[in-house]
Amino acid sequence: MNHEVAVTRLETPMTRSRFQSGLDELKDRLTEMSISAERSIELGIEAYLTRDSRIADEVFKLERETNSAEREIDQLAIDLLAMQQPMAIDLRFITACMKINADLERVADQAVNIAECALAEINLPKMKLPVDLGRMATTVAGMIRRALDSFIDANAELAEAVLIMDDAVDRMNKDIFVSMASLMRSNPQSVDQALNAVVVARNLERVADHATNIAEDVIFWVEGKDVRHGAAKEAV
Amino acid sequence: MNHEVAVTRLETPMTRSRFQSGLDELKDRLTEMSISAERSIELGIEAYLTRDSRIADEVFKLERETNSAEREIDQLAIDLLAMQQPMAIDLRFITACMKINADLERVADQAVNIAECALAEINLPKMKLPVDLGRMATTVAGMIRRALDSFIDANAELAEAVLIMDDAVDRMNKDIFVSMASLMRSNPQSVDQALNAVVVARNLERVADHATNIAEDVIFWVEGKDVRHGAAKEAV
Repeated sequence: MNHEVAVTRLETPMTRSRFQSGLDELKDRLTEMSISAERSIELGIEAYLTRDSRIADEVFKLERETNSAEREIDQLAIDLLAMQQPMAIDLRFITACMKINADLERVADQAVNIAECALAEINLPKMKLPVDLGRMATTVAGMIRRALDSFIDANAELAEAVLIMDDAVDRMNKDIFVSMASLMRSNPQSVDQALNAVVVARNLERVADHATNIAEDVIFWVEGKDVRHGAAKEAV
Repeated sequence: MNHEVAVTRLETPMTRSRFQSGLDELKDRLTEMSISAERSIELGIEAYLTRDSRIADEVFKLERETNSAEREIDQLAIDLLAMQQPMAIDLRFITACMKINADLERVADQAVNIAECALAEINLPKMKLPVDLGRMATTVAGMIRRALDSFIDANAELAEAVLIMDDAVDRMNKDIFVSMASLMRSNPQSVDQALNAVVVARNLERVADHATNIAEDVIFWVEGKDVRHGAAKEAV
């Protein structure tokens, strides 16, 4: 009987420690996933700008790895929710991880779309367009990195900086759309290349949206308040 | 002492019943959200096809309502996770709801993008384009409805039908892209209207992706297996 009690007493801290190491693993796996998502955007734009199909292939490979990682991370999160009654802060952390996970997987999908534009571009005559998609991609990859950093450091201020960057990316996307439409009107020979640039810009803009979603999830987790759709501002 | 025991005994079934009614409420709220998302797509395409800014305004209004609903549904789900240790099937249900919720909110965002194309179109000369965006929108709205029905009825077969419809929508999107690029090359006067059509088609295609995500979440919830990215096929 005494023996049984001793076992029971031992089990409680062990379970908590298993739970804690599960949370750490979740954070580590999501960090890897985020690095991979950022890398896939950088590779996608490199494939497009340098017209290199081997780099596009790397993007397709990364996306398959990301798909597997998403499933594993989701299962890990569900296992943690099932393992014990999580406290409020852990609960918000785990559900934020599940959402961030879904967003990162979709970033890899956007990178695939960009890599597909790269393959289409290879078959077209080279043309110098008055757009800087490389700069836009750097900004967007920076948003993913900051969103991740804000998650690792539980830093809501950094997450809020990501929300501001999103406005700049929206403007870049609109400017590219307007300048490419103007180019297509004046030079019908440029239609395919200009359309490709519009599609790449829209995909980058969507990546920025995913980074924004992640930043919002981080703020929700850290501050326990929901800032989505300006709710925090409304509440002030 | 006896009194206390009686209260404790009563509390367990009461809590379960509160939990159960919370699950029902979650399902009802998500159903309303899905109906609203489908409606916003129908209104968005109607605004675009009829060039009616009042209908576009309805889409903007629906999106604001959807944003509020998303927050409330998320909170409801988190409260349920915190309320008691959910059983595995309930846990999968609640986490599926959180994901479906995020996807439906983004469908409303896509509808806003389409409504913005409607407003841009109003300022352009009318032009008959060789594309049937109305048909594409009907297919896509049907995917949302089926994904919802599969969720209400816990019907994995119906959810699988949504995955098949997604391939058809991808083809429509590609066809529209090719035919609009060809039109722009041959008639530079058509660039703005044709570009708008490309953007509307891409937004519809993204809605189809969200419906597909929802269908995958339903299958995961119902069958307790993960079919994302062909995992189910791999496992067979």
